[in-house]
Amino acid sequence: MVKAPWQEVAKQAQLLRDKSIDQIQPPVPEVPSPAELPLNVTSIPRKLLDEAELKITESPPEELLKSLASGELSSVDVTTAFLRRAGIAQKLTNCVTEVLPHQAIQRAKYLDEYLATQKKPIGPLHGLPISVKEHIGMKGLTHTGGFVGWWDHVAPEDAHILQLLQNAGCVLYVRTTEPQCLMHLETSNNLYGVTVNPYNRTLTPGGSSGGEGALIGLKGSPLGIGTDIGGSIRAPAANCGIWGFRPSSYRLPTGGLTAPMAGQEQIVGVIGPLSASFEGCHIFIKTLIDQKPWLDDPSLLPMPWKFTPASQKEDSVGDSYLRKPDGSKKLKIGVLWSDGVVKPHPPVIRALRDLTSKLQANKSDTTIEFVDWQPYRHDQAWEIISSLYFADGATQDRAAIAESGEPWLPLTEFIINEQPGVPKREYSISEVWQLTLQREEYRAAYAKVWNESSKAKVWGDSASAKDTTSPGPEHDYPVDVILCPVGPGAAPPLNHARYWGYTSQWNLLDYPAMVFPVTQVDPALDQPEKDYTPLNAQDEWNHKLYSPDKYVDAPVSLQLVGRRYDDEKVFEAMEVIKSVVGGQLPLEPFR
Amino acid sequence: MVKAPWQEVAKQAQLLRDKSIDQIQPPVPEVPSPAELPLNVTSIPRKLLDEAELKITESPPEELLKSLASGELSSVDVTTAFLRRAGIAQKLTNCVTEVLPHQAIQRAKYLDEYLATQKKPIGPLHGLPISVKEHIGMKGLTHTGGFVGWWDHVAPEDAHILQLLQNAGCVLYVRTTEPQCLMHLETSNNLYGVTVNPYNRTLTPGGSSGGEGALIGLKGSPLGIGTDIGGSIRAPAANCGIWGFRPSSYRLPTGGLTAPMAGQEQIVGVIGPLSASFEGCHIFIKTLIDQKPWLDDPSLLPMPWKFTPASQKEDSVGDSYLRKPDGSKKLKIGVLWSDGVVKPHPPVIRALRDLTSKLQANKSDTTIEFVDWQPYRHDQAWEIISSLYFADGATQDRAAIAESGEPWLPLTEFIINEQPGVPKREYSISEVWQLTLQREEYRAAYAKVWNESSKAKVWGDSASAKDTTSPGPEHDYPVDVILCPVGPGAAPPLNHARYWGYTSQWNLLDYPAMVFPVTQVDPALDQPEKDYTPLNAQDEWNHKLYSPDKYVDAPVSLQLVGRRYDDEKVFEAMEVIKSVVGGQLPLEPFR
Repeated sequence: MVKAPWQEVAKQAQLLRDKSIDQIQPPVPEVPSPAELPLNVTSIPRKLLDEAELKITESPPEELLKSLASGELSSVDVTTAFLRRAGIAQKLTNCVTEVLPHQAIQRAKYLDEYLATQKKPIGPLHGLPISVKEHIGMKGLTHTGGFVGWWDHVAPEDAHILQLLQNAGCVLYVRTTEPQCLMHLETSNNLYGVTVNPYNRTLTPGGSSGGEGALIGLKGSPLGIGTDIGGSIRAPAANCGIWGFRPSSYRLPTGGLTAPMAGQEQIVGVIGPLSASFEGCHIFIKTLIDQKPWLDDPSLLPMPWKFTPASQKEDSVGDSYLRKPDGSKKLKIGVLWSDGVVKPHPPVIRALRDLTSKLQANKSDTTIEFVDWQPYRHDQAWEIISSLYFADGATQDRAAIAESGEPWLPLTEFIINEQPGVPKREYSISEVWQLTLQREEYRAAYAKVWNESSKAKVWGDSASAKDTTSPGPEHDYPVDVILCPVGPGAAPPLNHARYWGYTSQWNLLDYPAMVFPVTQVDPALDQPEKDYTPLNAQDEWNHKLYSPDKYVDAPVSLQLVGRRYDDEKVFEAMEVIKSVVGGQLPLEPFR
Repeated sequence: MVKAPWQEVAKQAQLLRDKSIDQIQPPVPEVPSPAELPLNVTSIPRKLLDEAELKITESPPEELLKSLASGELSSVDVTTAFLRRAGIAQKLTNCVTEVLPHQAIQRAKYLDEYLATQKKPIGPLHGLPISVKEHIGMKGLTHTGGFVGWWDHVAPEDAHILQLLQNAGCVLYVRTTEPQCLMHLETSNNLYGVTVNPYNRTLTPGGSSGGEGALIGLKGSPLGIGTDIGGSIRAPAANCGIWGFRPSSYRLPTGGLTAPMAGQEQIVGVIGPLSASFEGCHIFIKTLIDQKPWLDDPSLLPMPWKFTPASQKEDSVGDSYLRKPDGSKKLKIGVLWSDGVVKPHPPVIRALRDLTSKLQANKSDTTIEFVDWQPYRHDQAWEIISSLYFADGATQDRAAIAESGEPWLPLTEFIINEQPGVPKREYSISEVWQLTLQREEYRAAYAKVWNESSKAKVWGDSASAKDTTSPGPEHDYPVDVILCPVGPGAAPPLNHARYWGYTSQWNLLDYPAMVFPVTQVDPALDQPEKDYTPLNAQDEWNHKLYSPDKYVDAPVSLQLVGRRYDDEKVFEAMEVIKSVVGGQLPLEPFR
């Protein structure tokens, strides 16, 4: 029980954070004062770190792992570089709750010695620094879940996922911010304040894994751990121009997390990677699942991880999730331009258009086809999921906030008190069962829509270059993945992330979803739509929110979504897309 | 809403049932009056059916399917034989709610014509009659879930599982009894009365799928569909000397069932087969999963069915779930002699002893090893699961009973009003979350026990015949399956199935479990244990319940249990066991 006034606790938390940063050696360089900072601070670290540090921190995790395994880079050097860059990222965006220089360097030294004496890496993540969202328990450290009142909660042991990642050889070196109650698509709480977007400091980095988003966006971490129950991995990945993946439920271990409403299973929160690269997301998942975590955590499904990147396939005609009954390799993409509730802003539509155009010039050995995805009642999906988020009437959240007397933040108000589905009292058991049945009916209806997507009109078939304007038997298979926005716009101005539909939709359906960077808001290209007739009040609000100058430089990302448990197929489809656009995403390097 | 007095509704239900039996052609033979019947009625059908009918009905499903596919037997003949034997079974044990002679013969004719014209079977279940527990919806027919008040509930369409089984070519011809509220390990309700055990009519056939148990036990069906949330497939399979399998959750489709508390997910009820044979259970599951039911029902896991019977394996050194890291094929069995709460009666201990002795004479290419399984707090498991069964305080069950004014049956009283965990009001959401966490903690603790079974002392290693009294590195792998009782005794006297622990344990853990026949109660061999000191009041009650004469001829079955989602491994282990004891179970043919 925290006794001090909440403001005192917050001071204490920030002091501890700042002290931890002060312990980094060599010391973290000073950054300009906030008033002197540009909106887009992504280039600042390049001015403050030396060449070796820049080379390290701007390498993607798969490159770092190669150099670490060969001994070309030491884990101490890599860890030091990321500690320092994380320190800078903190000063620029307020994304860190603490750094762990002492334990991280100790660990890195151990790993360097291991490699020197054993002549082999300790595991597939040998020496790689990994950042960790605060509510993922670390032995002996506080985990607050964004509540001041939980400042004295101390994790009795490392979360299961941290044990497994450390088994594989990683270095834990930094913990990152999250919002009050973990249920914002932004990142602000009364302990540490507001985390901002490195590409535009007036915008949100997203949330709830927004500390990860900002940190990795600034290359202060190559790979981090987030959690997602409504978009909390994907919104920050999208807003910060990095990669993120929400796996299907019960594939990765969530044991040892702190959050209200433990035991709630109607909408299952998942854990997953945010990373500087696609490969980073893949290494993360593969490393975890290869350890058979279901043997210790029987809530997990014993599904081996089966995707192999093309580069690692011995036989390129091997197993493919895109192989069709006729033996051909085809990727059919359903493009969701709008969810029919809130139309995305112009930059998002442009990203969809640019990417699909590029994909139509496909010359790979995988045919790519497109159909327009018809959204099925996404408004109803939000009604169901928002009702199930707080089936206890948010009793536990209210209590956790009340514990310290901290104020309710606007987005906590928004998600708990302004959603019609969230009850003012606990639902009864029968009411929750009824809502669960609605969830199941909705899922079954969406499965039917997916099955019937085999009949949709195909509008792109670049490789075969034949007339495919009308579907024939050769197109008679359903969509493999949906390509869609991650939100109703790029990273919104702070306190304006008030439409969850583009991410929460896939939580309700428990579909795996990958987020990847495509482009950046460019006022020259992304003028507002004129004479727009809003679909409804929400749509009007979102439409009015947009102006190119407000959103300048914000990354624009897209989302690739698969059917439930088609996680591997999403990776394979993503790999095809990435390779067709020349191996690099975003399409042009970010400013 | 049923308006008539409940007694009138029951009369109507029984009349409809009897009329349906009267429509079977040739007519079902009369059976002796109850007073003239022996306790064990299993030999009666042999006196009433002709040789061709006996040959059909006493063939296991895998043989029938071969003959049906080749045209050696017509589906009309097979269906007619089972309709008639089901009619006899009804008269002997009261196990049927209605037969469907008209639709079944029509369907059989269609299938016979299909084979004649197409020269191939319509699917893997071509022409096979399958029996169906009443609460599994059949289009246009009532489904009551054992409540008189639900007599007017009519299924709008066939349950998903029935659609899939019919796709595969089966014939639905009979529906079977279940208890009031579906939550007894016996089978009695106010619509149809009491179903009795064909091996001893003073005993229960088990429940809740007890109609299936009695019917298949009397060979009135080769293969039937049951459901199981606490033992409802396994208790009847065990009590009636047949095979039954409870799969892990979310592998087989439960859409279209009627039961109270729809939407409850804390303890997931499953659907599965009861059959005259091991192979019948296998064909059932494989046929369903091969149709990818998850594409229509997204609650199901997209896990292909991967067990192939040895007889169908092209390469016998192919994939095995029993292959150990050193390449050897070994089956390590944990034997649970007692759950530490209620000790099983002497015939059950004898069955365990006889079977394990036979297995120690193993000469197969799979080494079999034994360890004693140490039960981990099975009493606590019952506390958790019984609390979660009726989280709504049985509100829906109470309402369903009250709807018609029918009396509460003793075993409904027992499970709802006499279990300390079942609340007198609805639990709050937070209470259910708390119980869910307890369930998860218990599951994790049991996983740990399982992992640590690698260290247990091995007491049987027949094939290698080396000294293995102490575990060495070559035994350093955990148990593959647990061999254990199915209940605290053989089929109990009517209204005495009051200990669920031996089955509900695996529901709480969501472990797959197969039940198979081993022996029969034999007063010459199964004398009560003298000078027994009971473990507790429950154990004392159970101990006193036993006397060999009361239980005479009752089948004694055992249960083979795997880890969650190790369904295929259970099948492979069972196949090894069956083959080592000479291919036949029970060990000696039943009287």
